[in-house]
Amino acid sequence: MLSPLDPLLRPAARADIAPFIVMDIMAEAARIEQAGGRVVHLEVGQPAAPAPAAARAAAARCLAEGRIGYTTALGIPSLRRRIARHYAETFGTEVSEARIVATTGSSAAFVLAFLSLFEPGDRVAIANPGYPPYRQILKALGCEPVLIRTGPETRWAITPEALADEHRKVPLAGVLVASPANPTGTMMSGQTLAALIGAAEDAGIRFVSDEIYHGLDYAFPAATAAAVSPRATVINSFSKYFCMTGWRVGWMVVPEPLVRAVERLQQNLAISVPTLSQVAAEAAFDGVAEMEAVKRGYLENRRILTEGLPRIGIDRILPVDGAFYLYANVSGFTDDSLAFARSMLAEAGVAATPGVDFDPYDGRHFIRFSYAGAADDMREAVERIGGWLKRG
Amino acid sequence: MLSPLDPLLRPAARADIAPFIVMDIMAEAARIEQAGGRVVHLEVGQPAAPAPAAARAAAARCLAEGRIGYTTALGIPSLRRRIARHYAETFGTEVSEARIVATTGSSAAFVLAFLSLFEPGDRVAIANPGYPPYRQILKALGCEPVLIRTGPETRWAITPEALADEHRKVPLAGVLVASPANPTGTMMSGQTLAALIGAAEDAGIRFVSDEIYHGLDYAFPAATAAAVSPRATVINSFSKYFCMTGWRVGWMVVPEPLVRAVERLQQNLAISVPTLSQVAAEAAFDGVAEMEAVKRGYLENRRILTEGLPRIGIDRILPVDGAFYLYANVSGFTDDSLAFARSMLAEAGVAATPGVDFDPYDGRHFIRFSYAGAADDMREAVERIGGWLKRG
Repeated sequence: MLSPLDPLLRPAARADIAPFIVMDIMAEAARIEQAGGRVVHLEVGQPAAPAPAAARAAAARCLAEGRIGYTTALGIPSLRRRIARHYAETFGTEVSEARIVATTGSSAAFVLAFLSLFEPGDRVAIANPGYPPYRQILKALGCEPVLIRTGPETRWAITPEALADEHRKVPLAGVLVASPANPTGTMMSGQTLAALIGAAEDAGIRFVSDEIYHGLDYAFPAATAAAVSPRATVINSFSKYFCMTGWRVGWMVVPEPLVRAVERLQQNLAISVPTLSQVAAEAAFDGVAEMEAVKRGYLENRRILTEGLPRIGIDRILPVDGAFYLYANVSGFTDDSLAFARSMLAEAGVAATPGVDFDPYDGRHFIRFSYAGAADDMREAVERIGGWLKRG
Repeated sequence: MLSPLDPLLRPAARADIAPFIVMDIMAEAARIEQAGGRVVHLEVGQPAAPAPAAARAAAARCLAEGRIGYTTALGIPSLRRRIARHYAETFGTEVSEARIVATTGSSAAFVLAFLSLFEPGDRVAIANPGYPPYRQILKALGCEPVLIRTGPETRWAITPEALADEHRKVPLAGVLVASPANPTGTMMSGQTLAALIGAAEDAGIRFVSDEIYHGLDYAFPAATAAAVSPRATVINSFSKYFCMTGWRVGWMVVPEPLVRAVERLQQNLAISVPTLSQVAAEAAFDGVAEMEAVKRGYLENRRILTEGLPRIGIDRILPVDGAFYLYANVSGFTDDSLAFARSMLAEAGVAATPGVDFDPYDGRHFIRFSYAGAADDMREAVERIGGWLKRG
């Protein structure tokens, strides 16, 4: 048995980042299911549907053709072209294909963005609550994540004023926002986004826009930072709208003067992005009709939850604007959302995610429900939670 | 047009790493081919053969079954188990599956290893010549790559004495070696490797073993650091022996007290490794007979080059121990291997890689020939280069 006190075996301090607490919930759910129990899954942040048939068919053809070699570091040229066309078609925005970089999911895009945009020690503002890896990747790469607390008065978004306040304390190098956002499910309007980008750039703060939930907008259309400023870095992925989580393929829109730096990083840190996934991603754009049907399913799930949860007492929910998340304030029931989620799983058989992963300040008062699953599961979840809360 | 002088658009200093010069040669080769010319490719570090049929069939089945979701961060359990079995079968070494981590190629494994083992500012020794991304990834992550010059007297390997010398100057935090090595194609014997690991650990220097070319050993059997010390970190990949470059799937053997740190990093930096690639990788182990036939092809290619190149005057070649590289000293012909490679491509239609990518000190005297291609290409290359050198 090796000693963890062995100086050769102590993890580096920069690897001392937080795990996902939701993993505990998922592991517990798996244990219940292995023991023959039934769990309704509202904890998982991934679609239940498969990738578009066109994407799967393209991958199958590529697979049948034989060798699957490296691609160029920036990605297959026809995929980059197709993504550029997406900006023209969806937003009427001209984005040069030279600025598109294929990435191994949005995860790798964050690493490439942070390494090319920020120096060690740089302060980067992110919204709280927010996606936990933002903080953890920044920390692992030597940057300081600066959590800006958001709330209902700003639809859970960072405002130009909040950004300026933080920048006055100690200058910020960057700000990263997501719309639609995880875990809140809230969105920024095009005007709000443009105002924040303008304020950031005027102050010399670099802007990164995580647009991974684009396409999944219900309240109003999502806006892209690429249409607002050629100096913003945009990150997106095929994981959510196109239901391609396990394929690990996404993209960036990079300001033109930064493309070469991102290319060198990708050459050295990744060589290239999984080839089959790139081929499938390009074809995914032909599966929009299929994905719109999946989206209509989310819309129905959203209706079931937004009508059902208030009826059973969970009535303090954030605007359910986009993505497939509903974020609920459960402080009327608990001061410990992790314990609440554990009991709900053990006693009601419903898995959901406690807010503590997303919000170190106030996450103990919140639960995230994912409605990426089946409508019947949503109905069953409402019924089970309702009965459980009544018994409680 | 954006100005590269715009303070918002200057790449971070840590992104100022070197590109691969071989990319220029590859781009030029592509231009010649597009214009209808013929190029014999000895520059590419990837097999011409496809992945094992069993791997492709497993991927096709997975694709047909529908949704391809995230896996756990450490990888699909049955894949981790199968890799652990590989150590028992190939080396008679017990390696717990709990220590196996699936990675997005060896590239991602380096990022995980460096972040979990080394702090910013740490000095990490690597062999010169060596694989360029070692230096570039270390630099991007804030570490200092320390090049230890190697030569024929040590079969191009770092020795305990050379390591101790460097450690005396300014302490080293780690040392990384590869056997078989890229670009030299040389190997360390089991004894040599064990001696270096022992010396490193006695001095408190962490040991990382890049074993990506394992399986492709011709001179003598390759040894694994996993059999020498439970405190060594091993990196491997399905790219080379199993011909799966574009799949981006590899693995690490991690010292047990570091597994949790690597898991947290992978959760946050990658979520998981491409699912289809993991499924295919597990099945690849059933394709060993097929891969041994591919290896016999490399052996024949190696014979053609080691007999043919000396006949045409390229007679100062390193021991051709393993991988699929032959590293030749061409200082009898040139003081500028990049210009030499460019002329050889333009005038003889043979693409090979100048040593400058691998060796900032003496690379201008060396050329790397990859023999991962077809035997006929090897014969044609010898003939073309021979005629060209005679004309020269």
